[in-house]
Amino acid sequence: MTETLAPDALPVLAESHVNDAFSFTLHATQGQARAGTFTTPHGVVNTPVFMPVGTNSTIKSVTWQHVHDLKAEIVLANAYHLYLRPGHELVEKAGGLHGWSNWQKPILTDSGGFQVFSLAKFRKITEEGVHFRDPLTGNKHFIGPEESMAIQNALGADVIMAYDECPPYPIEHHTALLSLERTHRWLERCWTSHKRHHDQALFPIVQGGTFEDLRIKHASMVQDFDAVGYAIGGVSVGEPRPLIEAITAYTAPLLPANKPRYLMGVGTIRDLLKGIRSGVDMFDCVLPTRNARHGTFFTPTGNKHIKNAEFAEDFGPLVEGCECYTCQNHSRAYVKHLMRQWEDTGKTLLSIHNIHTLVQLAKTTRQHILAGTFDDFYESTLEQLGGKLGG
Amino acid sequence: MTETLAPDALPVLAESHVNDAFSFTLHATQGQARAGTFTTPHGVVNTPVFMPVGTNSTIKSVTWQHVHDLKAEIVLANAYHLYLRPGHELVEKAGGLHGWSNWQKPILTDSGGFQVFSLAKFRKITEEGVHFRDPLTGNKHFIGPEESMAIQNALGADVIMAYDECPPYPIEHHTALLSLERTHRWLERCWTSHKRHHDQALFPIVQGGTFEDLRIKHASMVQDFDAVGYAIGGVSVGEPRPLIEAITAYTAPLLPANKPRYLMGVGTIRDLLKGIRSGVDMFDCVLPTRNARHGTFFTPTGNKHIKNAEFAEDFGPLVEGCECYTCQNHSRAYVKHLMRQWEDTGKTLLSIHNIHTLVQLAKTTRQHILAGTFDDFYESTLEQLGGKLGG
Repeated sequence: MTETLAPDALPVLAESHVNDAFSFTLHATQGQARAGTFTTPHGVVNTPVFMPVGTNSTIKSVTWQHVHDLKAEIVLANAYHLYLRPGHELVEKAGGLHGWSNWQKPILTDSGGFQVFSLAKFRKITEEGVHFRDPLTGNKHFIGPEESMAIQNALGADVIMAYDECPPYPIEHHTALLSLERTHRWLERCWTSHKRHHDQALFPIVQGGTFEDLRIKHASMVQDFDAVGYAIGGVSVGEPRPLIEAITAYTAPLLPANKPRYLMGVGTIRDLLKGIRSGVDMFDCVLPTRNARHGTFFTPTGNKHIKNAEFAEDFGPLVEGCECYTCQNHSRAYVKHLMRQWEDTGKTLLSIHNIHTLVQLAKTTRQHILAGTFDDFYESTLEQLGGKLGG
Repeated sequence: MTETLAPDALPVLAESHVNDAFSFTLHATQGQARAGTFTTPHGVVNTPVFMPVGTNSTIKSVTWQHVHDLKAEIVLANAYHLYLRPGHELVEKAGGLHGWSNWQKPILTDSGGFQVFSLAKFRKITEEGVHFRDPLTGNKHFIGPEESMAIQNALGADVIMAYDECPPYPIEHHTALLSLERTHRWLERCWTSHKRHHDQALFPIVQGGTFEDLRIKHASMVQDFDAVGYAIGGVSVGEPRPLIEAITAYTAPLLPANKPRYLMGVGTIRDLLKGIRSGVDMFDCVLPTRNARHGTFFTPTGNKHIKNAEFAEDFGPLVEGCECYTCQNHSRAYVKHLMRQWEDTGKTLLSIHNIHTLVQLAKTTRQHILAGTFDDFYESTLEQLGGKLGG
């Protein structure tokens, strides 16, 4: 399906203009599913959207030309990694992430909160922030809300994230409450210390673990701040999948209808469809490139592994009918050979296909929402997956 | 400089049409340096030409789209590697290397001779051929002239190479003589067993070590066969560089003026220029991609290493004025960061630059030969290199 209407010609169900740099327009809904347009300083993002992850200011195994050709509209980078290497000051000297990487479309940076909790060694959490050691060098570091804002201000992404506490699963109700209260105090400090409200949208993050009452409470608290958009965090941290889907389903609709909603770190085919049906607009996940590096590729009937013997003489594309560069040009047998020979190009070709799959899934879904055919698309896509995740 | 004359409009100093599939036209000379057009079943190659090496049927770290964008006109693949994995029969089933890799321009395959001598384990050389073990699996294999032809016929490259004995340096005169005599007997067997003379050009290879009399003798012997083109082999196998240059200088002019001449495995900036001045038309080398993987990039003043501290805050391109994708889009500081973070994309970006450098050097040199300005270009380019190799 091709979008025939220009954004200006699409209907307006709701909109927000928090400042001159950012706006969001909701064009259509079907149930909770939404199709919108999110305008940022570096361009327009058509939602729902999948954001490929470029942790170290590069999407792994592909060039930015590939990312452009894949029609990605916004990408993610990680403040934690870029703070450690090459350092946010250096990126700032290069003109921020856009100048540094020469990706001129919208960028979102994660705050580093999730990473100091999941990756750093010897971390010590205080009310001030998090003391931790660089896992590579052993050097001591400290990131609190103010430091995260300073780092993200230097990186200069269009969307930056609040610095939050990311408790693991499982967690007690009482602990989850204490944690979200701390996250809220940190959000206040982020909001105050953020120096670029005029051209960087700070998204608060709703926490609350797997507890509906806490999610409801926190979704209300974050709206104390008139943010450009809001995120749902603390999901996909080890909890059973039905819980992820349930949290998303009851939390997303609590967020303002006229602003973008971002479900953090989630990105299988099933996750995207479920999230979209619950009212989410933005998704990111490392799975497309991580899976590619391990030889896994996405198909409409679930993941397949290129090293499987069945593909040795399979001269068909990874996915019949797929319009990605890899499927248009190369066979399963060829890609399998590249992966078996440890050729980086194999990872590149699989990454291209996997990123394409999710970027395109979000685009196709948007068209179905605009056309009022989302429900059928949702059902048939999930049926084809047959209970698998597709990511 | 842009070529303004179509090939048909260029002068014809000499030409050959060995069969309907292949022709070579010599358009201009300056001293021994030559500008020509080599027509193959998969298209025209403007000579002098640099051929990127795609050992495993992929140029390492880049996609075929990159190779296309780099304006490479012909690439090399290795029969030895493809015989072992994925197997030449499989490649043949996919339609030969062109169908297998989906690179639709000319391809040249090396015979496997050099590789069984340099890479294989437990090799045993007899008059029949070479027994060896796969270094990965330990399995026993045998490749003689007939097997090499069968493999290369299956791979289906436009140009295939004679299966030769590749003695190491240093070598005694007597041993070198015995070796080239065997190589000549093997050439006779290659010629007879080659099944696709009509659409695959078999290039004989001149051996003879570092001995001028043997090179002269063998250059004459190979012309017993009315081949489409001829190669100079057994150079760059450890001998001092002045010897490589001397061998090339006295051997190349002994080969027919109306046919392409290929200097095997040689490819620094200096090698290309020296080779071209000696009358060579075709070059290949793994250095552009191998050096890239180690962080080395080519510059007009010699190689530089991206990991050097001096590049940490260097926001300029790898080479000022370079028109490659990398230099047009990314800074030294950014590429250095990618390499320090073990991001494959760093290798990709350096490979693109290094391949571009040599492909473009050959193209630029061709224009200078056509314009009669080769000598000045040769002198100024080598002067800028300041005695370094540039590769």
